[in-house]
Amino acid sequence: MADNFLQKIAAMQKDLDLQLKNYPFPQQPEYLYEPLRYVLSGNGKRLRPVLLTLTGRAYGVDEDDLSYAALAVELLHNFTLVHDDIMDDDLLRHGQPTVQSKWDNATAILAGDGLFVESQRAIGRVRNNTQGVGTVFNNGALAVCVGQAYDKEYEENQTITLNDYLEMIEKKTGALLSLCMEIPALLANQDEGVCSQLRKFGYDIGKGFQIQDDILEIFSGVEAMGKSLGSDVIANKQTALTLMARKLVPQDWNKFCNGQGSQTIDEKLAGLRTFFEDTGVYEETTAMADKYFKDAVNALAVVPNPGREDLLAYTNFIKNREY
Amino acid sequence: MADNFLQKIAAMQKDLDLQLKNYPFPQQPEYLYEPLRYVLSGNGKRLRPVLLTLTGRAYGVDEDDLSYAALAVELLHNFTLVHDDIMDDDLLRHGQPTVQSKWDNATAILAGDGLFVESQRAIGRVRNNTQGVGTVFNNGALAVCVGQAYDKEYEENQTITLNDYLEMIEKKTGALLSLCMEIPALLANQDEGVCSQLRKFGYDIGKGFQIQDDILEIFSGVEAMGKSLGSDVIANKQTALTLMARKLVPQDWNKFCNGQGSQTIDEKLAGLRTFFEDTGVYEETTAMADKYFKDAVNALAVVPNPGREDLLAYTNFIKNREY
Repeated sequence: MADNFLQKIAAMQKDLDLQLKNYPFPQQPEYLYEPLRYVLSGNGKRLRPVLLTLTGRAYGVDEDDLSYAALAVELLHNFTLVHDDIMDDDLLRHGQPTVQSKWDNATAILAGDGLFVESQRAIGRVRNNTQGVGTVFNNGALAVCVGQAYDKEYEENQTITLNDYLEMIEKKTGALLSLCMEIPALLANQDEGVCSQLRKFGYDIGKGFQIQDDILEIFSGVEAMGKSLGSDVIANKQTALTLMARKLVPQDWNKFCNGQGSQTIDEKLAGLRTFFEDTGVYEETTAMADKYFKDAVNALAVVPNPGREDLLAYTNFIKNREY
Repeated sequence: MADNFLQKIAAMQKDLDLQLKNYPFPQQPEYLYEPLRYVLSGNGKRLRPVLLTLTGRAYGVDEDDLSYAALAVELLHNFTLVHDDIMDDDLLRHGQPTVQSKWDNATAILAGDGLFVESQRAIGRVRNNTQGVGTVFNNGALAVCVGQAYDKEYEENQTITLNDYLEMIEKKTGALLSLCMEIPALLANQDEGVCSQLRKFGYDIGKGFQIQDDILEIFSGVEAMGKSLGSDVIANKQTALTLMARKLVPQDWNKFCNGQGSQTIDEKLAGLRTFFEDTGVYEETTAMADKYFKDAVNALAVVPNPGREDLLAYTNFIKNREY
């Protein structure tokens, strides 16, 4: 069963990789299309289109419509990555130089814009497109921008709480996963009761995913993450771990932060690991992620079998990933 | 007649200004919405939504649909301005600091993205939206990105021709004006014969407009332009004038360029003015703009009266502007 599922999503990932690598871009202008080809031939995990496709198949949605919607959501996701990487000055993405570090800011801004336009063109190709698919898609895109705005705002604000952070990632990460559920449900004419449960699944798995991402950023190895390990630490970004520390052990956390001298990034990471483990912050944060994954699973009760089994397997696949 | 027309478009501009200034953005996150409010309260001339509205009224299109489409096109235009200003390092737009000079690059990238999403949400609100309005809108958005890519590519290429430049501005400027014609025509169920003439009008008026813009950049005063006068000159951008010079008087132009020492921007501008006038470049370039305006007028033959009269008046209004 688990092996079958892994084969199934590997096939979906491969399909999408092929579609992206062979995206029918013109040769000219190279200034636009060379970076787009570069981004789309990267090693993304294609988690969003896989989720959208599994949900669509659970409801028997037309395969062509699903394929355009899956493509649209992956293009939208890549647009946000390219622009976020500029905003955050990140040098690596999926183990490769980011667009603005390989080219420059102007090239990366336009590459992101191009990906966004292509995502709109792709969602516009969904034929069974009368139930507000475009509206859901763009409401989701707006939520991602809003989430990114809070993320930037919070960088310079040392008073935000764990709850602020959870609301931020619900938008920045959850909204896109939520539309991966709602769009196929709309295409299958599901009612609002079902749609709202599916949206909830998306938000919950998004929060579980992002909290876990924060944990992996500190507790996993650099090769596996494929991005600059500790980049959030270097940028002094607030994460689920730092905000849980501020909530659970505010005085210890303050003392720890004030005691940070001029350390290497490795020393800083090792210090954080020890602190989070010794104070129970690691355990509580992991439990919070698990709680969101559990809530996500509960929301799946509305999905008919055998599709539900696949979405359960997907949830476990996300939950058990090691990078 | 002319006065009536000016009153008519002044009313349209005022309507749109009000809509943009009172755009129902939430208060939070300020990081996103404060720059958006700033951009939309700027002094744009609203030429694109005015054109779209005049065309829609010529064909009796539903006013609500027109209003959403007009808003969408102005938001799309503002998105491109905000991102172009970052890419070109421009400090002023419509007499005000650009977003990235008032805030920073990250803020301006996200502001542009937010405007783009809002433009999609606006075009999605057009109810009579079954004839590919969204497709035309996003094909136009793609053309603008392609045009901007060529513009950036050409900055570093001293071998491009006047024709290359005309193709570039057809995309960068003409495509958006073209969709201002095609969208209302689609909403009025006009056939492809009419649509293709209206698109041609958009491309022609776009080329006339942009060539004229290049001329005004050198030959008008800074206060009127409301942007950094000579910014194209400073950036060594290729314009209709420089490419006409390369075409008409290549040796003189080469000699002129090589003779440029360390001059102030005012000296440089004065030198360019004299050169372009003495060599006939100014005259030929002006004649080329006039030719495009004339072609645009011819394409209007398909539009029924009284709407056609308004579009003729609009063309003259663009042609005779002094900034």
